[in-house]
Amino acid sequence: MPKVKKDKGKLRIIPLGGLSEIGKNLTVIEYENDIIAVDCGLAFPDEDMLGVDLVIPDITYLEQNQDRLRGIFLTHGHEDHIGALPYVLRTINPPVYGTKLTVGIIKNKLEEHSLPWNPDLRIANAGDTIRAGSLNVEFIRVNHSIADACALAIHTPLGTIVHTGDFKLDVTPIQGEMMNLTRFGELGRKGVLMLMCESTNAERPGFTPSEKKVGKSLEYIFTTNPTKRIVISTFSSNVHRVQQIIDISAQHGRKVAVTGRSMLNIVGAAVELGYMKVPKDVLIDIGDIKRYKPEQLTLVTTGSQGEPMSALYRMAYSEHSQVTLGRNDLVVLSSSPIPGNEKLVGRVINELSRNGVEVLHDASLAVHVSGHACQEELKLMQALTRPRYFMPIHGENRHLAANRELAREMGIPDKNIFLSEIGKVLEIDSKGARFAGTVPAGQVLVDGYGVGDVGNIVLRDRKHLSQDGLLVVVATVDEESSLLLSGPDIVSRGFVYVRENEELMEEAKRVVQKSLERCLGKGKNVDRMHLKNTVRDDLSKFLFTKTGRKPMILPVIMNI
Amino acid sequence: MPKVKKDKGKLRIIPLGGLSEIGKNLTVIEYENDIIAVDCGLAFPDEDMLGVDLVIPDITYLEQNQDRLRGIFLTHGHEDHIGALPYVLRTINPPVYGTKLTVGIIKNKLEEHSLPWNPDLRIANAGDTIRAGSLNVEFIRVNHSIADACALAIHTPLGTIVHTGDFKLDVTPIQGEMMNLTRFGELGRKGVLMLMCESTNAERPGFTPSEKKVGKSLEYIFTTNPTKRIVISTFSSNVHRVQQIIDISAQHGRKVAVTGRSMLNIVGAAVELGYMKVPKDVLIDIGDIKRYKPEQLTLVTTGSQGEPMSALYRMAYSEHSQVTLGRNDLVVLSSSPIPGNEKLVGRVINELSRNGVEVLHDASLAVHVSGHACQEELKLMQALTRPRYFMPIHGENRHLAANRELAREMGIPDKNIFLSEIGKVLEIDSKGARFAGTVPAGQVLVDGYGVGDVGNIVLRDRKHLSQDGLLVVVATVDEESSLLLSGPDIVSRGFVYVRENEELMEEAKRVVQKSLERCLGKGKNVDRMHLKNTVRDDLSKFLFTKTGRKPMILPVIMNI
Repeated sequence: MPKVKKDKGKLRIIPLGGLSEIGKNLTVIEYENDIIAVDCGLAFPDEDMLGVDLVIPDITYLEQNQDRLRGIFLTHGHEDHIGALPYVLRTINPPVYGTKLTVGIIKNKLEEHSLPWNPDLRIANAGDTIRAGSLNVEFIRVNHSIADACALAIHTPLGTIVHTGDFKLDVTPIQGEMMNLTRFGELGRKGVLMLMCESTNAERPGFTPSEKKVGKSLEYIFTTNPTKRIVISTFSSNVHRVQQIIDISAQHGRKVAVTGRSMLNIVGAAVELGYMKVPKDVLIDIGDIKRYKPEQLTLVTTGSQGEPMSALYRMAYSEHSQVTLGRNDLVVLSSSPIPGNEKLVGRVINELSRNGVEVLHDASLAVHVSGHACQEELKLMQALTRPRYFMPIHGENRHLAANRELAREMGIPDKNIFLSEIGKVLEIDSKGARFAGTVPAGQVLVDGYGVGDVGNIVLRDRKHLSQDGLLVVVATVDEESSLLLSGPDIVSRGFVYVRENEELMEEAKRVVQKSLERCLGKGKNVDRMHLKNTVRDDLSKFLFTKTGRKPMILPVIMNI
Repeated sequence: MPKVKKDKGKLRIIPLGGLSEIGKNLTVIEYENDIIAVDCGLAFPDEDMLGVDLVIPDITYLEQNQDRLRGIFLTHGHEDHIGALPYVLRTINPPVYGTKLTVGIIKNKLEEHSLPWNPDLRIANAGDTIRAGSLNVEFIRVNHSIADACALAIHTPLGTIVHTGDFKLDVTPIQGEMMNLTRFGELGRKGVLMLMCESTNAERPGFTPSEKKVGKSLEYIFTTNPTKRIVISTFSSNVHRVQQIIDISAQHGRKVAVTGRSMLNIVGAAVELGYMKVPKDVLIDIGDIKRYKPEQLTLVTTGSQGEPMSALYRMAYSEHSQVTLGRNDLVVLSSSPIPGNEKLVGRVINELSRNGVEVLHDASLAVHVSGHACQEELKLMQALTRPRYFMPIHGENRHLAANRELAREMGIPDKNIFLSEIGKVLEIDSKGARFAGTVPAGQVLVDGYGVGDVGNIVLRDRKHLSQDGLLVVVATVDEESSLLLSGPDIVSRGFVYVRENEELMEEAKRVVQKSLERCLGKGKNVDRMHLKNTVRDDLSKFLFTKTGRKPMILPVIMNI
């Protein structure tokens, strides 16, 4: 085990996202006067974040220390690693480093956002080392479900931190090289201070299969379905998957049409930047598919997560302008549902089945492989880098705990394993490593154009409204005489179907009338708050007795 | 293939639930003047049925024909087969037949509901045949994840209908007999007119493993964890699972404490009715666990679906009054998440992992088996009964389509396979079978005490409210002079955090003020509807431009 180099400085590792959660990956590493950030991702909202579009990390700490921030270093171009950039770059503007494809995807993305400055995007190739003050950041090739992914070795005065990003080992990658095992081994031989290792598949035994395996399944499907049109839905960012679909289609004499906005975007960018090679005359416009017979066509589409309004969803529900699916179609879902999306995916499969379309998915044939390392690969990473300290990152608590278990198996002593939390500071110096305080961290909710203007109170109200709806009670009161001038009127939404429950609503009105009279009868200048609370309490009790529900009640008392 | 018996009558098969959906199973079978219903289940609400507690079938057709209804026949005691009874028995009161355990569970259930009459519950044992007018209903033993489950053979003047209910083949059942394959074979030899077969696992190849397999995994867990307290969570209705847990605990010298209301209920009923055998002095009260060491204890608990407020959930979040979990505990989730519950289950696993509790679940060890037949068992059922007609039931479209595929493989001609829908009438007479019209069918939503008072309009409003919240705009207008007497006031909920967005709310108020002035300025007796619509439109446009959101806007104009 490597010793910590003698140096008076302090190294601090601060995750701002990606721990105890899936997504919004962001890690801060700082040494004295220099700070870098690794990744800047978004997360998708939990089902209780009603109406929220996406979630980004709280970057208060980076904003407060932007004079020391030497750069944001991106491991790859997935949303959970780059998706927060358009929001984060509104308040800070450090150099952003990534590989060619990663930067290409970000450029595309930033076109939809207006920033107060030109972002400083810089390309770094695998093998490059970027100087960031006293820190030197080395990009190391890894395999993943997107092309051009890297891990980082951050060389600090106290030693080297290896941050794996997301990775798997693919001995037979589709395009580009195998993960640079040798370099990880060299680093390990020289001594790695800290391994920060992703945990997504830490509960899964064995090795993740090669992307090539999907090719074999697709080959089988194409061979055994020579008369059908084949429609394949996958993640648009999985350039290698799309490459395989194109190659196999070409071999079987099929043209390929691409549909879905993000699929068109990424295929366009990948071809332009040289990450995809398309045989001549294979790609056709979706508008031209009518010229070909079913057996001459492959369609590649978005929607593998069952997203409403995606191309596949619209095809399934007969809302796609160019494609109508039927008995001559075979749909392949080359993906697996992200946890929480099972029902959405299920709906699309059901609708396709209802229309007589045959559907193949991950459970029926191996048409998908994960992009993340399973247990044996995670242990291999530890075996090569032989780190002094270990921190599992990128995963929910169950995944972090499973990754810790692997580190224990590999012989890293418990005191050198650090299960951290977002905002928690791990301090390393020549005397050792320890948790030392916290910095601001959390989640910022994006809803429409609003960034951070929706919080717990708003979400609590949305939840309440979604469960039992609301009743608005309005009355106009003469302020001086405390006489009821108008009302009470009751308007309800999301509570009961009013036309069929007129009696209940009339009764409710009488309950409010009585409450008002009781309060107002007590004399002049009745306290408005008291009036509102009385109305709310009386009506609430009445409605609960009658319906077993607790709608939100909003009393509005107008004074004249 | 059996011929249809010569008879002038018409047989009608009408599914009222359980097709193109999971749950609310209810099938109507009628021959001339006699009607029976098979099962009467509930379904759990989709995630877009906000605030809805449960869903039951529309039984208008049964209500309209109750004079011909000879009985409701229940295949087993799961909620999706009996759960609608407390609501259905409010309007109709036919005899209800089921096996001893099934009737026991219903009695328990009905105690929480008040009915206008005493329900007419009758016990039928496997092997019994009940006369229902011209129909004779035979109960046939099957295996399933609840004890005392049966299929039904409905003998009609035109031939025999086999309705499988839910089933699997378990050659080594824990208690009770193996599924009565012989009887299905005898029926097949005599000639089965129609097989209505469940489809839940029709996409899964092979055979479903025996319940015994779980016992082996549990045995392994108990042997390899001799020092920990073992907490096992499973479906309360899985009496055989609980029996195995008790037996293995006793063998390992552990006491068993049961927690969770439904678990206590069912274990109580099962022991009382003789479906469970508990060795002496093994069951202890949960309040007494402090008297024992961890290695002397097994806890059996509800909450295997991650249900908030279930016993396991409360233990995980340290809210359980008697049980605090920690490093000395091993939690086993002896279940698999029902589709849609993955995230809830994941949360509990994460919270347990966070607290250092080891968790074993279906993905890590075979601690659960399904209660439903896989493809080979479904084909076996067809092979034994050799039906003339085939109708896949109990499943979403994907499952029904997969079951149809199995029937094709088994050689049933396409014209004899009927993929039906709820409300769709299949008519069979001596000339053949054909779809012939529909009857009322659908879903009735239960919310609190309300049955059917929440429909699409209410749900649409709840959805709208949940996404962007609402603004209530109130103003008082003098009816005659069209003068604004008071307001406008704006109250919002679930839109933005008002205290941090005072400027936006002030601007919104000015927008409304302008709208009102514009309308009211046009003279007396301004049309109230026009006023409201103008305010709604202007404010909506303004808010969308500012925030990218479309909250519900409720203008309330009071006239004096």
